[in-house]
Amino acid sequence: MARRVAVVGAGVSGLASIKCCLEEGLQPTCFERSHDLGGLWRFTEHVEEGRASLYKSVVSNSCKEMSCYSDFPFPEDYPNYVPNSQFLEYLKMYANRFNLLKCIQFETTVCSVTKRPDFATSGQWEVVTLHEGKQSSAIFDAVMVCTGYLTTPYLPLDSFPGIHTFKGQYFHSRQYKYPDMFKDKRVLVVGMGNSGTDIAVEASHMAKKVFLSTTGGAWVMSRISDSGNPWDMVFTTRFQNMLRNALPTPVANWLLARKMNSWFNHANYGLVPEDRVQLREPVINDDLPGCIITGRVQIKPSIREVRENSVLFSHAPREEPIDIIVFATGYTFAFPFLDESVVKVEAGQASLYKYVFPAHLQKPTLAVIGLIKPFGSMIPTGEVQARWAVQVLKGLNTLPPPSLRVKEVEERKQNKPSGFGLCYCKALQSDYIAYVDELLTSINAKPNLFSLLLTDPRLALAIFFGPCSSYQFRLTGPGKWEGARNAILTQWDRTLKATKTRTVQESPPSFESFLKLLSFLALLVALFLIFL
Amino acid sequence: MARRVAVVGAGVSGLASIKCCLEEGLQPTCFERSHDLGGLWRFTEHVEEGRASLYKSVVSNSCKEMSCYSDFPFPEDYPNYVPNSQFLEYLKMYANRFNLLKCIQFETTVCSVTKRPDFATSGQWEVVTLHEGKQSSAIFDAVMVCTGYLTTPYLPLDSFPGIHTFKGQYFHSRQYKYPDMFKDKRVLVVGMGNSGTDIAVEASHMAKKVFLSTTGGAWVMSRISDSGNPWDMVFTTRFQNMLRNALPTPVANWLLARKMNSWFNHANYGLVPEDRVQLREPVINDDLPGCIITGRVQIKPSIREVRENSVLFSHAPREEPIDIIVFATGYTFAFPFLDESVVKVEAGQASLYKYVFPAHLQKPTLAVIGLIKPFGSMIPTGEVQARWAVQVLKGLNTLPPPSLRVKEVEERKQNKPSGFGLCYCKALQSDYIAYVDELLTSINAKPNLFSLLLTDPRLALAIFFGPCSSYQFRLTGPGKWEGARNAILTQWDRTLKATKTRTVQESPPSFESFLKLLSFLALLVALFLIFL
Repeated sequence: MARRVAVVGAGVSGLASIKCCLEEGLQPTCFERSHDLGGLWRFTEHVEEGRASLYKSVVSNSCKEMSCYSDFPFPEDYPNYVPNSQFLEYLKMYANRFNLLKCIQFETTVCSVTKRPDFATSGQWEVVTLHEGKQSSAIFDAVMVCTGYLTTPYLPLDSFPGIHTFKGQYFHSRQYKYPDMFKDKRVLVVGMGNSGTDIAVEASHMAKKVFLSTTGGAWVMSRISDSGNPWDMVFTTRFQNMLRNALPTPVANWLLARKMNSWFNHANYGLVPEDRVQLREPVINDDLPGCIITGRVQIKPSIREVRENSVLFSHAPREEPIDIIVFATGYTFAFPFLDESVVKVEAGQASLYKYVFPAHLQKPTLAVIGLIKPFGSMIPTGEVQARWAVQVLKGLNTLPPPSLRVKEVEERKQNKPSGFGLCYCKALQSDYIAYVDELLTSINAKPNLFSLLLTDPRLALAIFFGPCSSYQFRLTGPGKWEGARNAILTQWDRTLKATKTRTVQESPPSFESFLKLLSFLALLVALFLIFL
Repeated sequence: MARRVAVVGAGVSGLASIKCCLEEGLQPTCFERSHDLGGLWRFTEHVEEGRASLYKSVVSNSCKEMSCYSDFPFPEDYPNYVPNSQFLEYLKMYANRFNLLKCIQFETTVCSVTKRPDFATSGQWEVVTLHEGKQSSAIFDAVMVCTGYLTTPYLPLDSFPGIHTFKGQYFHSRQYKYPDMFKDKRVLVVGMGNSGTDIAVEASHMAKKVFLSTTGGAWVMSRISDSGNPWDMVFTTRFQNMLRNALPTPVANWLLARKMNSWFNHANYGLVPEDRVQLREPVINDDLPGCIITGRVQIKPSIREVRENSVLFSHAPREEPIDIIVFATGYTFAFPFLDESVVKVEAGQASLYKYVFPAHLQKPTLAVIGLIKPFGSMIPTGEVQARWAVQVLKGLNTLPPPSLRVKEVEERKQNKPSGFGLCYCKALQSDYIAYVDELLTSINAKPNLFSLLLTDPRLALAIFFGPCSSYQFRLTGPGKWEGARNAILTQWDRTLKATKTRTVQESPPSFESFLKLLSFLALLVALFLIFL
């Protein structure tokens, strides 16, 4: 049974991993290369080597009820979509609440993680770390790798003919921090992921002109869904998921496209995805259509040629003068401290069984946590991975033999999309509910809707028709949380609390009262006729 | 018959007035106090006495097809909602195209406009102007006053107890130019008109915290309507107007509220109007709900008390620290160069027959153009007023006797709403289509839908079901424009041109093809069965 666990990285997945280890009686030691926790969510004024880098204005794309740790809701007065500084505060509250700091060694870089000579029997690892210029080494029974996938920028300059003649400024979106630099400039943002779109919108407040170039286009969604509810609380429900899965894929995609186009017609805004059938991950942005309709951002197709001070786009004769190019071409990932025989990364695909365990490894004592891009929130996904992984590391849960694991990975690779840029996206992407349910089932923590319907119908209905928030994952099984039921039943209260900051004595509108009066009269007449 | 006409102000209504005079063979002389045309739409770095003042980021709330002069569409590559700098360019193009500059005397302030002693018979006016420190005087047969209603800020400081103890900065929204001043400050914007909302949203990009205080609340609409079409091209149609007018007011308002709440529930966002039944002018803003849901703007009720460094709000115990207060409490208006006996302004109401002619005046030789706030665009409204007024000034169109005119004005005053702030709004507000139709009917320029349906059904349908764009007003009557029909039939093309800047070879989605195939097969079977 594993005892000592090395956790690499103290970001959202690292913190979840430490907590799961503590919860299950393991001894975690977390190595964090920077001086503080928070990983991705800790904004710094300057880009730091080996760490993800945020721009100042980043706001979570997943709402607070859907993106919290499953036993630690955000404070009720937090906004529904949390700006990065508050997100970091939340992570610190979490670390304090569960006493995680004592397990973290800051300013400690992991240099290598290698199998011990007796790995085949012990499953142990030797971890070499660097702290204040001094190397040290230690033996661990297991390793949890929580380094994320947003540290290594992907910038295929060769795909942009003439870029080396460009006399303006150009850089990867990772370098971007503040919009001031765009003041009165003509800016071109290349790539329409969430970062690229955010940067284009933000630049439009300062720049003379902003172009957003996209080869494949994208569906753009607002954080604000029907009636103003957070999109993920409406979209990510078990009921809707069931419907979507029940329909044939083309019908489901057609309905989704219809929904996307009801906000604005993506063809008329120059955004329609090239391949409407295969649904790429939508971009979450509230402001882009407003920027397009007011001319502050102009959508462009792919780049044909970069010249000294201008850019030519495909199928367009006109040369557009450009001062700054921002390449929001995404990230790739790597595990520099791991040997290729442990985890192989090929064409943006890591050979990980259920996105967690290296498929080939004889002993499942190394887990990669948070190397997945669910269409949903990162935190609960990583947390469920960690809960499952810890059960496996403890030997309470067993994996299929390596051959079967390899087969699962190979099958997934078949779905690899083509094209440059966020090409690894799809590979990391997974249907949130189906994926977490699979892992929860392994550890007997999936809520049983049928039995709940008999014992606690209110809760069962909230789980099935309501948002699939992560509190559901703590109703039962290892790591069960007593507060889970209440958290589920009050999730909409916390959502409203954040925005309903001015209340009005609501008199029902007269037309509604009139309708009510009418139905009351009809009822009276009916009763009268019945008992006559 | 009037010959020499003085036009006061070279803003959007002044330019339309000059052009209408030229069109009808009158001799206009326009006096403009600043050095250039454009009025409201000419941004300056500093506030100028007696002129409206824009902030740098102002974008038109009415789309280009709905806000252009009726015989001069915006260039097709202009964005649908035009930023102020481009709007000014357009006005300059208009002035050049119709050779209006030769009629404008810049840097000339109108000091007084007084009746000539023989006014009762001649209807003439003496206009005293000041140019380069030198006064001069001239006689005019008629005067068109085009000074607008956004020059005199309304700031009822007494309504805010304790404001004089406030140690932070406070000012009227008119003073606002750039958001930089809000950097890292705690900002309170008071008043939720279009400016207040714009400023709060813009401040949220820079400020530490932004509060938007509103007593009455407001409906907020996006420029982007269903499927991404410009809101006013969807909302302002003769068909919809007919529907709205056919329904009882409470039902129409209820439907409208439902529509407004479908974007986001205004109660849940703290914005629901206090009086749901009486529909106030909606605020046009694309970004406010996004700012609320991400916590960047917090809605607050009215101010209870201002303290040294903080503000207390109604029904809330918590004191909020505030550094800057922006009073977006609107404007009032006045005619300093006119005697009260000509136009009386009382409680924000001017006694103007059909918002144009002073009700009491014996001779209708003075017209006020553009002193109206249509729920629609300003330019076409002012232009129709000018066209009608010029016909009246020429004596080709007669007004009812003063007693009837006074009656009309008195009736309108009854509808005056209460409350501070934009209290004159309602008084200036008018149903766009009904109002322009009334004036167009007077000058026989209203399109006759019934006869068009017989002679040009395509055009008739576009006029009835399509956007009520101002080209319709030039199909017939004085000032008829040959290009009007074509402009109507191509208005959607110009709209799409601005946003469809990346096109994709659209393959119909497979589900649609499948449906088509299915119906084709059904048709075959049906034919087979029929002819069997």
